[in-house]
Amino acid sequence: MYEKKDDDNSDMASLFEPESIAIIGATPNRGKIGYSICEYLQASSARKYYVNPGYETVWGEKCYASVLDIKGSIDLTIIATPSFTVLDIMKDVVKTSSKSIIVVSSGFGETGTAGKEAERKMLEMVRKSGKRMLGPNTLGLYFPWRNLNTMFLTLDRMKLPPKGKIAFVSQSGSVAAVQMDYASEHNIGFSGFVGLGNKVDINENDALKYFINHDETGVISFYLEDFRNAREFLELSKNSDKPIVVLKAGRNPGAARAVASHTGSMAGPDRIVNAALKQNGIVRAFDEEELLDFSRALSYPIRMKGKRVAIISNAGGCNIISADYVEEKDTRGKLELAEFSDETHEIIKSVIFDFASYHNPVDLTVGAPTEMYDKVLDIVKKDDNVDAILFLALFQAAQIDDNFYEIVRKHSLNSDKPLVVVTLGGEYSSKMIRKFEKDGVLVFPSISRGVRALRIMSYYNSIKYYNSIKSH
Amino acid sequence: MYEKKDDDNSDMASLFEPESIAIIGATPNRGKIGYSICEYLQASSARKYYVNPGYETVWGEKCYASVLDIKGSIDLTIIATPSFTVLDIMKDVVKTSSKSIIVVSSGFGETGTAGKEAERKMLEMVRKSGKRMLGPNTLGLYFPWRNLNTMFLTLDRMKLPPKGKIAFVSQSGSVAAVQMDYASEHNIGFSGFVGLGNKVDINENDALKYFINHDETGVISFYLEDFRNAREFLELSKNSDKPIVVLKAGRNPGAARAVASHTGSMAGPDRIVNAALKQNGIVRAFDEEELLDFSRALSYPIRMKGKRVAIISNAGGCNIISADYVEEKDTRGKLELAEFSDETHEIIKSVIFDFASYHNPVDLTVGAPTEMYDKVLDIVKKDDNVDAILFLALFQAAQIDDNFYEIVRKHSLNSDKPLVVVTLGGEYSSKMIRKFEKDGVLVFPSISRGVRALRIMSYYNSIKYYNSIKSH
Repeated sequence: MYEKKDDDNSDMASLFEPESIAIIGATPNRGKIGYSICEYLQASSARKYYVNPGYETVWGEKCYASVLDIKGSIDLTIIATPSFTVLDIMKDVVKTSSKSIIVVSSGFGETGTAGKEAERKMLEMVRKSGKRMLGPNTLGLYFPWRNLNTMFLTLDRMKLPPKGKIAFVSQSGSVAAVQMDYASEHNIGFSGFVGLGNKVDINENDALKYFINHDETGVISFYLEDFRNAREFLELSKNSDKPIVVLKAGRNPGAARAVASHTGSMAGPDRIVNAALKQNGIVRAFDEEELLDFSRALSYPIRMKGKRVAIISNAGGCNIISADYVEEKDTRGKLELAEFSDETHEIIKSVIFDFASYHNPVDLTVGAPTEMYDKVLDIVKKDDNVDAILFLALFQAAQIDDNFYEIVRKHSLNSDKPLVVVTLGGEYSSKMIRKFEKDGVLVFPSISRGVRALRIMSYYNSIKYYNSIKSH
Repeated sequence: MYEKKDDDNSDMASLFEPESIAIIGATPNRGKIGYSICEYLQASSARKYYVNPGYETVWGEKCYASVLDIKGSIDLTIIATPSFTVLDIMKDVVKTSSKSIIVVSSGFGETGTAGKEAERKMLEMVRKSGKRMLGPNTLGLYFPWRNLNTMFLTLDRMKLPPKGKIAFVSQSGSVAAVQMDYASEHNIGFSGFVGLGNKVDINENDALKYFINHDETGVISFYLEDFRNAREFLELSKNSDKPIVVLKAGRNPGAARAVASHTGSMAGPDRIVNAALKQNGIVRAFDEEELLDFSRALSYPIRMKGKRVAIISNAGGCNIISADYVEEKDTRGKLELAEFSDETHEIIKSVIFDFASYHNPVDLTVGAPTEMYDKVLDIVKKDDNVDAILFLALFQAAQIDDNFYEIVRKHSLNSDKPLVVVTLGGEYSSKMIRKFEKDGVLVFPSISRGVRALRIMSYYNSIKYYNSIKSH
């Protein structure tokens, strides 16, 4: 039996950074999964070997009848053939030099007992041969730092995210597809994506180890329906300097039953999951929107070191809605309204209108000219009683001019305290949000999402700090 | 003292449906509030009288030096002049035939004691003369059914919503601006909007009475920081057949202090507000997004008569996230996963793939062809154990074709049970969401918002039913 060493990531490197790839099930037939995979692999500089007994050539290159006919060395083999052929093909693949294997084919453990038995055989083969296997029933992987996309997603009605800092690991192909598509529209960069599929060999812990050591990754984000080895996951997370966000689905009985029918695994009581994640410095998300929002917030280069929030805008009503959320009780961390120093109060008072409010939340009122925002942001950022700023950048006010965008951008990017921007409204505001996103400003289109991002930044700091105290 | 009768809406009709309008502070100077008001009033067919002692003509018409010089009858007078002039102008206006007055000017009660005293004088004048006054410090009103817009909002970077069924009443101009702008982008129709300003005479109760009797209004939606007469508001709401949604801000101590500085009013304990709203059949929203989401959901022509939700999609992972939210405990109503009848199970089983899940949540799997959705929606809609459907319309799947949109639209619009659509993803999906919105499909861009809409539809039904039982 192959025993892998804990810190050995070389097998995962063959998966994410292959120099050579064999594609079994390569085909010139548009509409087939093997076609899409070959199509997207053209962007990769890896040496490609096409395998399909039905063709002499595909994609303008030689097509091999069997993977055994390939003379060169292979880092990664992708199997995208009907399920009934997979076990026989695996028998050949494990005889080659291929270090890892992605089994895209579905129709295994997720379909019942016979499928589970086939998976047991696959695992035996990969363990005996010292290889690693992703899948079966996996969407594959996307690694933009190497222009590598092994996925079969049709890109007619969706797009992939740009290069960036978020690593995403998903036990669901559909969640992965919608997340990547969303990220593409909002310019949220991914450092990599892995679809775990049925997790027969490679599981979330292998991916976690890889991304913890991957320089371009800043945050590691998971959609999981079960843990293959929870103890190891928690231990790895606890020691990670990179924030980890987990959407663990199946919290409630009916959803847990759906998980069981989806993955075949049974979940323990959810409050234990909750506590374990928190104790090990892991942030929990409850839905697809939170998962990306939190990952974005925690990949923001500036950390929030306390819980005191200043709120600034030209909009009294929106300030109050925001203040309500800041003060709200929440299991994921406590925020409070910052109390400015006397000096801050005096300086704010001297720059804003007589009838405007210089207390937190600061209401500059709708007639505030653009420079006023600049001055007030400068003052509030310097107050030691403030850990972060929620700035409502509302473009509806007639008095602001074209410099307004630039002032918000400047304060967001040049700050030692997080500045979260909330922009509300319609078409024009949506355009400004896209622009902020492109420029790396942490912006949200609703008050609740903006405040929640701050809450999570503060929460992460507190659970990480608490854990580092405990372990000393 | 003028005593108004409770059911007399004629004074409010002069506000929303004036045949003639005097604008004091009319000006040809772009950038002035009086300019914007005149500009937008051009769309109204009401007879307009311009008043400003500085001009002979404005907008190509005669300009009067004083409102007293106008010979014709006036339904509505708008005052948009500097605050120090307002009391003197009011003295003239109350001598005219004008039935209602909008005081746009700010700088009164919101600025301190002297402003409050001026407001007391205004109120005395309007009460003595039997007129009604909106404001001061009001954004004005927008009544698209009459092409009436008395607001001074600059429409350079924002737009107004189309005609529709939601009446919106706001104690904050900024909340109003962002809501109307958002509604415009998402094709959410408004039947009318009133900015309450300082609520010196006309308050939320007057607006509520007017919209309860306004045929085109389906739902009445409020942003409030205080109640002028809570008992009357609750009584009116209790007897209203139209759903009422209230965002009452200032729930927590710091936010309540901000309300006090914003409106000068002190709030009671929030749990009392919560209970009173619920007991009187009013739905509470906690932020700007919920306020519009809930108003949209409750203006949907189909009511949800129970709490049992069916979830259908091609996406196992998204189904499970949805099921978790359906089962979540929430103070605003209980939902549960519907348990299909045996017959429904058998029929679903016969139309979906062998390996797909026919239990609720129904996972058709990513390879489902378009017709399969049509069939399954038909079956599930007929099951008596189902009160509403959450349908995740995910356009990323390669197997769906161009009929998919049409099938979802058809099932959403032809149904005796609510069908809430959730569409997740990027650019293409956003485009489909806009299209759904235009077609009147109740669609949301996140799972939490979709489930919450269903929760509120069910909650509204339960609190209204409970109240009608009690009152018999």
